[in-house]
Amino acid sequence: MASSSTLTSKSFLGSSRIDTASLSSDHLRKLSISSVQISFRSRLPKKLQINAAGSTFGNNFRVTTFGESHGGGVGCIIDGCPPRIPLSESDMQFDLDRRRPGQSRITTPRKETDTCKISSGVSEGLTTGTPIHVFVPNTDQRGFDYNEMSVAYRPSHADATYDMKYGVRSVQGGGRSSARETVGRVAAGAVAKKILKLYAGTEVLAYVSQVHKVVLPEGVVDHDSFSLDQIESNIVRCPDPEYAEKMIAAIDAVRVKGDSVGGVVTCIVRNAPRGLGSPVFDKLEAELAKAAMSLPATKGFEFGSGFAGTFLSGSEHNDEFYTNEHGKIRTRTNRSGGIQGGISNGEIINLRIAFKPTSTIGRKQHTVTRDKKETELIARGRHDPCVVPRAVPMVEAMVALVLMDQLMAQYSQSYLFPINSDLQEPLAIPRLEAAKASV
Amino acid sequence: MASSSTLTSKSFLGSSRIDTASLSSDHLRKLSISSVQISFRSRLPKKLQINAAGSTFGNNFRVTTFGESHGGGVGCIIDGCPPRIPLSESDMQFDLDRRRPGQSRITTPRKETDTCKISSGVSEGLTTGTPIHVFVPNTDQRGFDYNEMSVAYRPSHADATYDMKYGVRSVQGGGRSSARETVGRVAAGAVAKKILKLYAGTEVLAYVSQVHKVVLPEGVVDHDSFSLDQIESNIVRCPDPEYAEKMIAAIDAVRVKGDSVGGVVTCIVRNAPRGLGSPVFDKLEAELAKAAMSLPATKGFEFGSGFAGTFLSGSEHNDEFYTNEHGKIRTRTNRSGGIQGGISNGEIINLRIAFKPTSTIGRKQHTVTRDKKETELIARGRHDPCVVPRAVPMVEAMVALVLMDQLMAQYSQSYLFPINSDLQEPLAIPRLEAAKASV
Amino acid sequence: MASSSTLTSKSFLGSSRIDTASLSSDHLRKLSISSVQISFRSRLPKKLQINAAGSTFGNNFRVTTFGESHGGGVGCIIDGCPPRIPLSESDMQFDLDRRRPGQSRITTPRKETDTCKISSGVSEGLTTGTPIHVFVPNTDQRGFDYNEMSVAYRPSHADATYDMKYGVRSVQGGGRSSARETVGRVAAGAVAKKILKLYAGTEVLAYVSQVHKVVLPEGVVDHDSFSLDQIESNIVRCPDPEYAEKMIAAIDAVRVKGDSVGGVVTCIVRNAPRGLGSPVFDKLEAELAKAAMSLPATKGFEFGSGFAGTFLSGSEHNDEFYTNEHGKIRTRTNRSGGIQGGISNGEIINLRIAFKPTSTIGRKQHTVTRDKKETELIARGRHDPCVVPRAVPMVEAMVALVLMDQLMAQYSQSYLFPINSDLQEPLAIPRLEAAKASV
Amino acid sequence: MASSSTLTSKSFLGSSRIDTASLSSDHLRKLSISSVQISFRSRLPKKLQINAAGSTFGNNFRVTTFGESHGGGVGCIIDGCPPRIPLSESDMQFDLDRRRPGQSRITTPRKETDTCKISSGVSEGLTTGTPIHVFVPNTDQRGFDYNEMSVAYRPSHADATYDMKYGVRSVQGGGRSSARETVGRVAAGAVAKKILKLYAGTEVLAYVSQVHKVVLPEGVVDHDSFSLDQIESNIVRCPDPEYAEKMIAAIDAVRVKGDSVGGVVTCIVRNAPRGLGSPVFDKLEAELAKAAMSLPATKGFEFGSGFAGTFLSGSEHNDEFYTNEHGKIRTRTNRSGGIQGGISNGEIINLRIAFKPTSTIGRKQHTVTRDKKETELIARGRHDPCVVPRAVPMVEAMVALVLMDQLMAQYSQSYLFPINSDLQEPLAIPRLEAAKASV
Repeated sequence: MASSSTLTSKSFLGSSRIDTASLSSDHLRKLSISSVQISFRSRLPKKLQINAAGSTFGNNFRVTTFGESHGGGVGCIIDGCPPRIPLSESDMQFDLDRRRPGQSRITTPRKETDTCKISSGVSEGLTTGTPIHVFVPNTDQRGFDYNEMSVAYRPSHADATYDMKYGVRSVQGGGRSSARETVGRVAAGAVAKKILKLYAGTEVLAYVSQVHKVVLPEGVVDHDSFSLDQIESNIVRCPDPEYAEKMIAAIDAVRVKGDSVGGVVTCIVRNAPRGLGSPVFDKLEAELAKAAMSLPATKGFEFGSGFAGTFLSGSEHNDEFYTNEHGKIRTRTNRSGGIQGGISNGEIINLRIAFKPTSTIGRKQHTVTRDKKETELIARGRHDPCVVPRAVPMVEAMVALVLMDQLMAQYSQSYLFPINSDLQEPLAIPRLEAAKASV
Repeated sequence: MASSSTLTSKSFLGSSRIDTASLSSDHLRKLSISSVQISFRSRLPKKLQINAAGSTFGNNFRVTTFGESHGGGVGCIIDGCPPRIPLSESDMQFDLDRRRPGQSRITTPRKETDTCKISSGVSEGLTTGTPIHVFVPNTDQRGFDYNEMSVAYRPSHADATYDMKYGVRSVQGGGRSSARETVGRVAAGAVAKKILKLYAGTEVLAYVSQVHKVVLPEGVVDHDSFSLDQIESNIVRCPDPEYAEKMIAAIDAVRVKGDSVGGVVTCIVRNAPRGLGSPVFDKLEAELAKAAMSLPATKGFEFGSGFAGTFLSGSEHNDEFYTNEHGKIRTRTNRSGGIQGGISNGEIINLRIAFKPTSTIGRKQHTVTRDKKETELIARGRHDPCVVPRAVPMVEAMVALVLMDQLMAQYSQSYLFPINSDLQEPLAIPRLEAAKASV
Repeated sequence: MASSSTLTSKSFLGSSRIDTASLSSDHLRKLSISSVQISFRSRLPKKLQINAAGSTFGNNFRVTTFGESHGGGVGCIIDGCPPRIPLSESDMQFDLDRRRPGQSRITTPRKETDTCKISSGVSEGLTTGTPIHVFVPNTDQRGFDYNEMSVAYRPSHADATYDMKYGVRSVQGGGRSSARETVGRVAAGAVAKKILKLYAGTEVLAYVSQVHKVVLPEGVVDHDSFSLDQIESNIVRCPDPEYAEKMIAAIDAVRVKGDSVGGVVTCIVRNAPRGLGSPVFDKLEAELAKAAMSLPATKGFEFGSGFAGTFLSGSEHNDEFYTNEHGKIRTRTNRSGGIQGGISNGEIINLRIAFKPTSTIGRKQHTVTRDKKETELIARGRHDPCVVPRAVPMVEAMVALVLMDQLMAQYSQSYLFPINSDLQEPLAIPRLEAAKASV
Repeated sequence: MASSSTLTSKSFLGSSRIDTASLSSDHLRKLSISSVQISFRSRLPKKLQINAAGSTFGNNFRVTTFGESHGGGVGCIIDGCPPRIPLSESDMQFDLDRRRPGQSRITTPRKETDTCKISSGVSEGLTTGTPIHVFVPNTDQRGFDYNEMSVAYRPSHADATYDMKYGVRSVQGGGRSSARETVGRVAAGAVAKKILKLYAGTEVLAYVSQVHKVVLPEGVVDHDSFSLDQIESNIVRCPDPEYAEKMIAAIDAVRVKGDSVGGVVTCIVRNAPRGLGSPVFDKLEAELAKAAMSLPATKGFEFGSGFAGTFLSGSEHNDEFYTNEHGKIRTRTNRSGGIQGGISNGEIINLRIAFKPTSTIGRKQHTVTRDKKETELIARGRHDPCVVPRAVPMVEAMVALVLMDQLMAQYSQSYLFPINSDLQEPLAIPRLEAAKASV
């Protein structure tokens, strides 16, 4: 296959490999051939770096992300973080490493160390209450050139919709909606996870529960007891070793064919404080749904009994209450997924998020150019055959950001004055000590 | 009737029937019996009327709802509506009638006419650009008393979480998270739908695609052509008569047993302007997910290929582009659900929302009282055996509110200056004339 | 003066007296006479009631106002109020009475009792944490008709700018920007004041410090000790009896001539918690400036040394720190007005707000009609000869709303974890007990 | 020079000159001497760089600033900018040069070139609609060390309030509330000014109208015709040469004594589109007041007749309407300052902002240390003897940001559908062509 005769497409969660010199987009526009493949090693001109709008999440604990795959770097600003929290780069680096490309054979081979740097908001190891600026330089600047994107719209990518929205050549169109933008989310989420753990012993854990047709049956993973170590014990991030192996095999099967697959990430929250969320538009499940569905490649969200719950009758579905041995009101079942009437009830919050198969594939696809001519396109180079293993820390981050934001909202409203201990319990559970010890 | 031996529970989407005199909660607290049923006809004291927080949705086109089942009424304030739009109560009444209780045997028998009144923001038949205040009085004040809620937490309702959050007796706990709150959403959504139609010929249509185990197969309803009339041709709001009959039978089956079922509402948007949404946190699908999941009783959200898409490979899933006979860029398939990279691409937007079976059922359930004693509870009286037929206009409303808000955002940013007609098209499609004619 | 030959104008802080039958605006438009006066007693058609946009203030403690002079009533929704605060209508009525028209000879003679009603958010005398809905019916529906406003723009009113903005007949143009809209602010402010007092012993007190050319010299009122009783000891709300008399005389002087005057309201905050505000765009003084300047008729805002401070040198202006006998860091002078770097420092916050002379005057003025014809206009009937006595509770309300919002922000961020008692002090000062005792 | 016996203070609008070696704060704490002066040349440790919260301004046209004096640099992110606007660094550099330190003898001698770099959001010379990231490196890292701030609170600075708020050593306390933070505002304001000019021929012009006791009389500068060139014709930025000279002399007088002075900046807007702003909380004057009062060192804000207007009667103060020769409704006077009822009326918007004398002065002041011990402090080195000449572009920037944000709001609401040309006029005035020509 001639590398000069087929357009190269950027991968979903990384960047394509680049081989040859760049062509001007004017030149490319004149080509009338129906199938071109082009490779480059030129450096992206600085002026072509593009961020994108709608970049802030949260009200009290606010995160703004910036940057994309092919600028100098990516990162975030965390505004509103409580002061006096012990924090350093190492608190973020663990999750960034779980997110980074090149971590295993089933992720994109793009090499990024994703080493983060906190440049403000932390002084002498403690947060100062002022914005925390986190920066992760892009190191794998292998000279990808997006000129081909000036020409052909990659199927199921954002190239076309960017043009439709903004009316300008956003040649890095995918830049902001690419997975590289999530570096900032993961860094901020790590801070939120740390504070939630310190404050209330809250744990946010996600894992892969489906890859293509390999579906982990419910109950195999015990939500009360499974651990981060189990998640991290294999490259696909499924806590069950047997199913992990099947999932890896499923990814390998498409990887060698240049194809891709999707899957499902399950996330649970243990020890979530009761009372988070609110009754109408800002229900906790609504906030979680928005958070999850703002991740790239998501197609669906469900919590508690989810879509399957629609097959039950009310008498089968309702969660009966009881009082446990510590005098605490609990539910015997948890089809509510830890949330009732938009508000957390102290049971385990659980949710599932569907991710589509990676759009970038190493197979010929029909498409059109920016000037509406039909063409063919083959993406070559580096892309994730399946995004879900790397999506695990992204999901944890978004869930933690929602909880942290709601915790602060709840604290400022319902805990400003002494609580009614007949009905409420302290937001901070005694696990604080244990959590602190483990820092 | 053993009205003194079982606690009566409020229905999910309405109120229970009330038969006898009220008991003080103090009195009830002293009861040690494990199963009580109580009925009332006393009038709710005014001071017990409760609204709830997080009551505003949208940025440019902003809706704030107020009121609940048992106050003087419910409604909304629409802030930021464009001026000079022809508008009257009749524009809202149609959807309010689709939402109201008592409309058929498969909805709660609670009787509400739900007659709306616009009291500001419209002058001489035109919107003025200032807040539109819509009020719907509650007429079915049959004297339901919530004293029993002071005593027992209804399973899978918001009673317990309200106490956990606020630490006060919100005896109408369910009030704000009940379906009656959605009156304001439906009224506001009707305005949004009207403007979207006027502006761009955009149509938002929802229908029931599943009731319990009756699943409408994909493709039976043609998304390009089915009409509102078909949706409204039967009481369950499924455009296919054959499946509608099966769904109604499924609801009847549980209704007579005092049980309940859930289901799925599908919603599509035709002629959505291209370019709505944004690339990062405020992706169009994320906004839609939040909007949908803020409706009561929702358990899941998916768009495009959804959870089923996870079973496809990338080469099967991607939507190839082509240029149609009008020189317009289209996709051959629509697994993207009309949204790519967070931005609408002009194809039909489609989404599916799971609703759980109604929590209020006429069967004995175990639960606990506010002071943590175990008890039993039987909900008697009026409730919806299945919420999905009435959820149809609610879903349309929330989707329309998102689109209207995003339309205004897009207009103020990307259309402030003349567009780039090589890449963009006018937000307002020529259908405007036709739409206007039909007003 | 012939009552049929001059247009009647609505007063700034009330409504004009109405004498005769209404005329259609079409009819009026045909009049070519250059000076007309019209009076009415017809009832305002319901469809002409208009609210206006931008109706929400605050982030954590959020107030939305609704209604205007000539609808059924006015009021507000308070969203995000902490639960379990003792609250009843009487907590608001005191300030509403200070604001209401007809309270003395120097205010508009329009008669409104302004009796408020809480219809949600309070249960058994305690706030529930859910929205507090406050409604004040309009009782003085003396049949003012705004048809003349269809014809002539009142000088220095909002009639013309409403047309320019919205392009529709907002015949009650002044409705939302009139002082009647402030009923909702004053009611909400009373709640904020109560909570601030309960929480931290914080007091917000405003008074009239200038009327026309009568200027109360600085230092006459002792900001450390003057009381609400002193403010309320006279109808102009100046704590110094001698200057109060002069101010009343100044108002009487213009009142009898059908003219009007303006003045200045000074507001101070005692026992404001330290640490409220933030360093950049949301400085405490910036929030206070917006709050104050959103009141009708305001022309200027200053705090601390204000405009006069520009005449000092730095060495004269700086506030030196010292440690007082309780080991508390204080400043010897307070040219900073209790705010440094955007953040409260615990000293008395002080600010001054300029109010222009009432626009509605009983004198002939030149103006133009909506169709751009020149005409003359005489406002007859009821208006305030000077707005500042009634502005006093409005100013207190807006200042209290800012502080309450910032208190909740500060609590959720900087007080989520235990404070650093070397540098910080508890937000809640021991005065809580005393304040509670006085409830 | 007794450099070891007096604490050195940071200047208000820059940094102090540093002469000697650093001392540890521990060491300093042990000193019991009542007056120390210290000078440094050590480099600020990276971990001490601190940003601060509340860093975003605007809703549609949103600016987030970051950085402070002593980190790697400062800048901003502009989110929501319309696409396809010609933009380059040179559009910002002009205003940055007007703001930068060291531009003349009457500003701080700190040397910064303040060369800006756009790193995203602009492609091939056009805005892309995605966030514009602007960065200005700090070049004058002359090794200022803030250890003395660990010890002594500088009078009328933010050191003490930062400690009170956050409870941590924000050793660069003044960092975010210092004038260096305004670099980002000025850069963003330059973009807003450019778009306003392109769109509607709108001009935002500020100038110095008072320095200490030198007050430019009203009317000396003709607001209809004075030009940017006149403002820039002298170093104090007063368009009248005679008064400029007096002002410069006034600054020189205090400069040589190590003292400082304040003053007033006047800002006008010509060709502001009519209809910007809204009637209640978000009045245009309220937004402008917040914008202005969020600048460092501000003490007061007034518009139109301002505080002086309180000395007029209503009949003297009202602005009568007339129709001009082009059939346009105008006011004969402009005591309304171009805004009526919270909405722009097309007349010149004018406002005045009071700035206090610079807090940093080269004179001995009494203060306390962080551990509450009394001490003395002498600020040495570089500071602005008067901030107002450099405040001129800051004021223009904040005013332009408000107008741009309101323009987009007005466009999306009131101009979404065709306007009512009887009452409204196009937002874009024909000057667009001329403005474009000058680009």
